[in-house]
Amino acid sequence: MRIARFSIDGNVAFGAVEGEGTGDPAGLVLDVIKGIPYGDFELSGTKIPLSKVRLLPPVLPNKVVAIGRNYAEHAAELGNEVPEAPVAFFKPTTSVIGTGDAIEYPSFSDDVHYEAELAVVIGRLCRDVPRDRVKDVVLGYTCANDVTARDVQKREKQWARAKGFDTSCPLGPWVETGIDLARAGDLTIQCTVNGEQRQLGRTSDMIRSIEDLVVHITEAMTLLPGDVILTGTPAGVGPLNVGDEVAVTIEGIGTLTNKVIKRG
Amino acid sequence: MRIARFSIDGNVAFGAVEGEGTGDPAGLVLDVIKGIPYGDFELSGTKIPLSKVRLLPPVLPNKVVAIGRNYAEHAAELGNEVPEAPVAFFKPTTSVIGTGDAIEYPSFSDDVHYEAELAVVIGRLCRDVPRDRVKDVVLGYTCANDVTARDVQKREKQWARAKGFDTSCPLGPWVETGIDLARAGDLTIQCTVNGEQRQLGRTSDMIRSIEDLVVHITEAMTLLPGDVILTGTPAGVGPLNVGDEVAVTIEGIGTLTNKVIKRG
Repeated sequence: MRIARFSIDGNVAFGAVEGEGTGDPAGLVLDVIKGIPYGDFELSGTKIPLSKVRLLPPVLPNKVVAIGRNYAEHAAELGNEVPEAPVAFFKPTTSVIGTGDAIEYPSFSDDVHYEAELAVVIGRLCRDVPRDRVKDVVLGYTCANDVTARDVQKREKQWARAKGFDTSCPLGPWVETGIDLARAGDLTIQCTVNGEQRQLGRTSDMIRSIEDLVVHITEAMTLLPGDVILTGTPAGVGPLNVGDEVAVTIEGIGTLTNKVIKRG
Repeated sequence: MRIARFSIDGNVAFGAVEGEGTGDPAGLVLDVIKGIPYGDFELSGTKIPLSKVRLLPPVLPNKVVAIGRNYAEHAAELGNEVPEAPVAFFKPTTSVIGTGDAIEYPSFSDDVHYEAELAVVIGRLCRDVPRDRVKDVVLGYTCANDVTARDVQKREKQWARAKGFDTSCPLGPWVETGIDLARAGDLTIQCTVNGEQRQLGRTSDMIRSIEDLVVHITEAMTLLPGDVILTGTPAGVGPLNVGDEVAVTIEGIGTLTNKVIKRG
């Protein structure tokens, strides 16, 4: 099932996306979910064409834990070695936007990059998750763009500003719950800028698997329903400019599209 | 005014603390606040002795932005240079505890340290705050302990686990709103372990002032009411062991006390 979050006429709800298509709203319909999609929930049967709503970030995370340098070729392209331990950092909730929302080019950077990533959405409160229970705490998957001020990342030792500025965490278009762990670990992930392909990787090239990451993170901290793990980006990162349209497409999930604008 | 957050008989509320004392509940009384203490609010006149309640973290932050290496002597004691830009990182909301709550020694570290810090509590939504408006966005100040797994911090390049594990962000005992920016920048800050003094500094020794930090952070991201900025720790950091009682006292604010326990 594809679970979207949307607003229409000032009301916000979750809905199950029905129909074919991967990001293009044409022909897709939302069946409105009663309440929130954690634990058991029901579909209301009320159907709304996707073209009539504004899609929102598909989850309201309490926290976004992101992983750096999780693809060997990407670590190499920035001159970094494969790290001994996963490089884990946070993106704040104020950085989260949905598909169709604008990435605002920050005033303190001249080198903002896209980073296409598979995002894992957590479905239940968990801590110290054993490897064989990881499947039970994952609600599903969505597309993410770990937008990064590369120049700021290089000069500030911790990445709160470089990777945490407002609008630096596009998530969407929806959460796909019908992908199991094995398949999530072997999906094509692609990034285009203005329709030109810039990144093309497979999640099978991740150095640490989804299971590894959930075990590693929950050894230290509690994850809550709606929390998100960004699993790292494949090779091919590069700059975004004002006016660009950047799109992250993951096989079996959909496409997350954002325009880059000047803040003003 | 000292604003506490507390629970009694399963109900949670904010209250204004009345009476003398700096952390010891003897003789202190809470006047229950109607609603939440952002913007205009009223006192209910309903008074509850502080000894009858459980104090909670005095704020529910959306995010905690922390600053590393903001005191020259502390940077030097860990072999670090004074950084060219503030070292900003996040502590997740799942790490926040209140005074009297236990710090749980994490399983993946053998070297957990205390770090006494002045915490700035934000009172209103803000972005791109000019220096002369910083005073308008600060609600008040509380004590913080930026508990750190020092061994993990050294081996993991980003500090999400080292400084973000559950219980690693004690805040409290309450928010003091009666201190202005000039005075907040010249307060004694002290840390004791089992009653022995380990850190004694002054906030006047901060490399970047509170104004500097609010400008720097809000250049990149929106701060929300209840968000917290940790301003760095003075020299004297050192290990905590299971069974220790660690106390952070800041002049004019109060004392934040936490015991260290083994998880499990």
